[in-house]
Amino acid sequence: MIETIGILGGGQLGRMLTLEAKRMGYRVVTLEPAVDSPCGQVADDQIVAAYDDPRALHELGERCDVVTYEFENIPLDAVLTLEREGRLVRPNGEVLRITQDRLLEKTFVRSCGIATADFAAVHSRAGLDAALAAVGLPAVLKTVRGGYDGKGQWLAHTPSDAEAAVDAARGRPLIFERFVPFERELSIICARNGRGEAIAFPVTENVHDAGVLATTIVPARVPTAVAERVRTAAQRIGEGLGIVGAYCVEFFHAGDDVFVNEIAPRVHNSGHYSLDATQISQYEAHVRAICDLPLVEPHLFAPAVMVNILGEGTGDRLAGVNDLLRDPDVKLHMYGKAHAAARRKMGHFTVVARDVDDALARARTAKALLHWTAA
Amino acid sequence: MIETIGILGGGQLGRMLTLEAKRMGYRVVTLEPAVDSPCGQVADDQIVAAYDDPRALHELGERCDVVTYEFENIPLDAVLTLEREGRLVRPNGEVLRITQDRLLEKTFVRSCGIATADFAAVHSRAGLDAALAAVGLPAVLKTVRGGYDGKGQWLAHTPSDAEAAVDAARGRPLIFERFVPFERELSIICARNGRGEAIAFPVTENVHDAGVLATTIVPARVPTAVAERVRTAAQRIGEGLGIVGAYCVEFFHAGDDVFVNEIAPRVHNSGHYSLDATQISQYEAHVRAICDLPLVEPHLFAPAVMVNILGEGTGDRLAGVNDLLRDPDVKLHMYGKAHAAARRKMGHFTVVARDVDDALARARTAKALLHWTAA
Repeated sequence: MIETIGILGGGQLGRMLTLEAKRMGYRVVTLEPAVDSPCGQVADDQIVAAYDDPRALHELGERCDVVTYEFENIPLDAVLTLEREGRLVRPNGEVLRITQDRLLEKTFVRSCGIATADFAAVHSRAGLDAALAAVGLPAVLKTVRGGYDGKGQWLAHTPSDAEAAVDAARGRPLIFERFVPFERELSIICARNGRGEAIAFPVTENVHDAGVLATTIVPARVPTAVAERVRTAAQRIGEGLGIVGAYCVEFFHAGDDVFVNEIAPRVHNSGHYSLDATQISQYEAHVRAICDLPLVEPHLFAPAVMVNILGEGTGDRLAGVNDLLRDPDVKLHMYGKAHAAARRKMGHFTVVARDVDDALARARTAKALLHWTAA
Repeated sequence: MIETIGILGGGQLGRMLTLEAKRMGYRVVTLEPAVDSPCGQVADDQIVAAYDDPRALHELGERCDVVTYEFENIPLDAVLTLEREGRLVRPNGEVLRITQDRLLEKTFVRSCGIATADFAAVHSRAGLDAALAAVGLPAVLKTVRGGYDGKGQWLAHTPSDAEAAVDAARGRPLIFERFVPFERELSIICARNGRGEAIAFPVTENVHDAGVLATTIVPARVPTAVAERVRTAAQRIGEGLGIVGAYCVEFFHAGDDVFVNEIAPRVHNSGHYSLDATQISQYEAHVRAICDLPLVEPHLFAPAVMVNILGEGTGDRLAGVNDLLRDPDVKLHMYGKAHAAARRKMGHFTVVARDVDDALARARTAKALLHWTAA
């Protein structure tokens, strides 16, 4: 029986996961190098150490019945070390290995018979010509490993843009992807437990700002057939990976087509809305999945819009909360971070409303109220 | 600006209050003598000390911007000590003084022009005849101070029952109340902030089992006029007290009449449902009220039934959770208590459904699945 959950990573995803796990009665221990982390503030305990510290990993394994992670850029070795010691890690190391590597990931998606943008591997300027010929322009060059929130990505309209990107990557292996002229970015949260029970949340529409998710709209304003295609593809991917836990698949939507952009083997920013707009959240779904509990199909109470609250580098006090909270349908979530560095994810709010347009309008009004000031 | 909330008391009400406060970005410190308390497990820190330990109270005051309490039987002196040291305590000591004393409380309610059962003070067998003559039988004798979940209460059908109750009270002052042949027990959660903004949750119907709340049904199955009477009375009481925070007023409902039974100057078991069935919970309402944030009117997503999960003294492992969670509309809350002593409140679940009858039927089915076993 699972009583204590270990989490690798101490950020806001771990925090919200912990709040839901605590509600359900679990103990939570996080391993995170930064003291007083968003997750550590709500967990029963935080082990303050590097993710790959063998003694810290051993301690985490000893204290927990299952270990999970809240971001996919933890060292794969950390998970493999735990697994070698006989610990239950969910999702497992093989899932992490594939999803940490954009080439393995896209190759895997294609092996499931699901479309992605055309892509090729590029290790140096020398390989660029072949990639240009095979894939074409415009293209996006991304580091194969690491990188998130738009970091480690370059858009190339010309061969010289591509060369500049290869130079900027400083020898890191790249994936060269054909740019998809998409209408919308879509994503979906799914979850699978160890018995293969699978659920899917509603498809969401995501608006990014300079690589960082700004707004999630749910349900996505796409035809039912497109939403169905997203759901089918995401569930096939989960099954193919044999994943246990919640996961997110991001898509580009163009006309009748959807192309997989990325798999996140974890709870995801685009699923925050589920804390307030569905009867089961992505966090509860993850807890249930990794703790051998049954999964139930989520249903949306009403349309919702989630807005990230980013730091502005102008101070650490969020002004405007008083006005924000006058909207009866705004739910505020703050992550307990002391410093509001520019573009840092500090919190989010969700507006649940009678329709998407109403939610969007009220979210815009609400967002305009907030700004960061010196204390 | 309020950043850190102190809570006197470490039980489940403090736990759920803390989970909501953490979501909103607050720091929480609890003062509670029992180590590893339900609240302490989720708070940033727990000061382990007696509620009236002057040094612990001083530390709590130093570390927090506002102090509140999660049950009303903490020593009044603890709150008065904090107030003497210039700390902000919400609700304040005067509210606690009145609501800790059933005679002061009922006298206060009457002074607001709101009905209670007839009552009289009884200090000894000598005073019993006067009370019997003034109030009549059947009656309920209750200790004036302390007592909860039906403890410190005796039902008297005959004068000799009343004498036995006085003896059982062993010199503690009693209130002698006329028994109201009620159809239902109703309650309502309200909240007021420091600017006098006031909100009220839907009226609930409460079913007790041997003095302990078993089930809350929301909305209560009473005529609109009765619900309106409850709401008006509860808001008048809050205004009269000048209370800042969430509070609960319990009523007996008989025909067209409602009689105030009790005021709890805190979040309340009968408001648990609000975590899952209204867009703002009683816990968030309390946090907002004591932290100078605006209050918004709660609205119910759908009818709901809350069922307490009580210990049975038959073991500390809750069996049946797997089956319970197959109902897609069940939300489970467990309090992190290690030992499931008989009748101890260990957790609760809420079923949100299309109508009260459906919610009640599913709650009954769900409850029957649960039992406590040895680990």
